[in-house]
Amino acid sequence: MLSQMEHAMETMMFMFHKFAGDKGYLPKENLRVLMEKQFPGYLENQKDSLAVDKIMKNLDLDQSFFSLIAGLTIACNEYFVVYMKQKRKK
Amino acid sequence: MLSQMEHAMETMMFMFHKFAGDKGYLPKENLRVLMEKQFPGYLENQKDSLAVDKIMKNLDLDQSFFSLIAGLTIACNEYFVVYMKQKRKK
Repeated sequence: MLSQMEHAMETMMFMFHKFAGDKGYLPKENLRVLMEKQFPGYLENQKDSLAVDKIMKNLDLDQSFFSLIAGLTIACNEYFVVYMKQKRKK
Repeated sequence: MLSQMEHAMETMMFMFHKFAGDKGYLPKENLRVLMEKQFPGYLENQKDSLAVDKIMKNLDLDQSFFSLIAGLTIACNEYFVVYMKQKRKK
C-alpha cells in the first residue's frame, strides 16, 4: 500500500502522462488543458492572458513539469503560512 | 472540491507541516522520520547509510523540501518511462 506522499507523487506522474500522451512531454496546448482541468481557479483568476505562455517560457520538456508543480506548491505554502499566522493573531 | 492535482499538492503541504511542526522547516531528524514513514522502501534499500545526510546538504529550509519531492518524482518518472518502454517491447 502506498503512503500518502507516494500516492501524491503517483498522482503527479499519472496526470503528467495523461496530458502528455505518447509525446512524453507537455506541449503548450496540453499544458493549458491540464491547467484548465486541474487548476480551474488559476487561469480564471489570472489577469494576465499570456500566463500560460509565460509559464511555457520557463518550462522545458517533461522534467520541468514537476519543478513547476513544486514552484506552485511553494507559492501555495507561503500563502498558507501567512494565512495561518494571521489566523493565530486573531 | 479539489482536483486530483490540487489534492496531491495539499497532501505535500500537509505532510511538510506535520513533520516540521512549529519550526516551519525540516531539521535532519524530522526529515529522517518523514522519509521513514512516507518512503519506507527508500531508506531500507539505501546502501549508503549517510543518504539522509547527503540529502540534507542540498536541502535548505522549507522551500527546498518541495524541490526535493519534485526531484524524487522526476527520478521515479524516469524509471517508470524506461519500465513502460521495456514492457511495450515484450
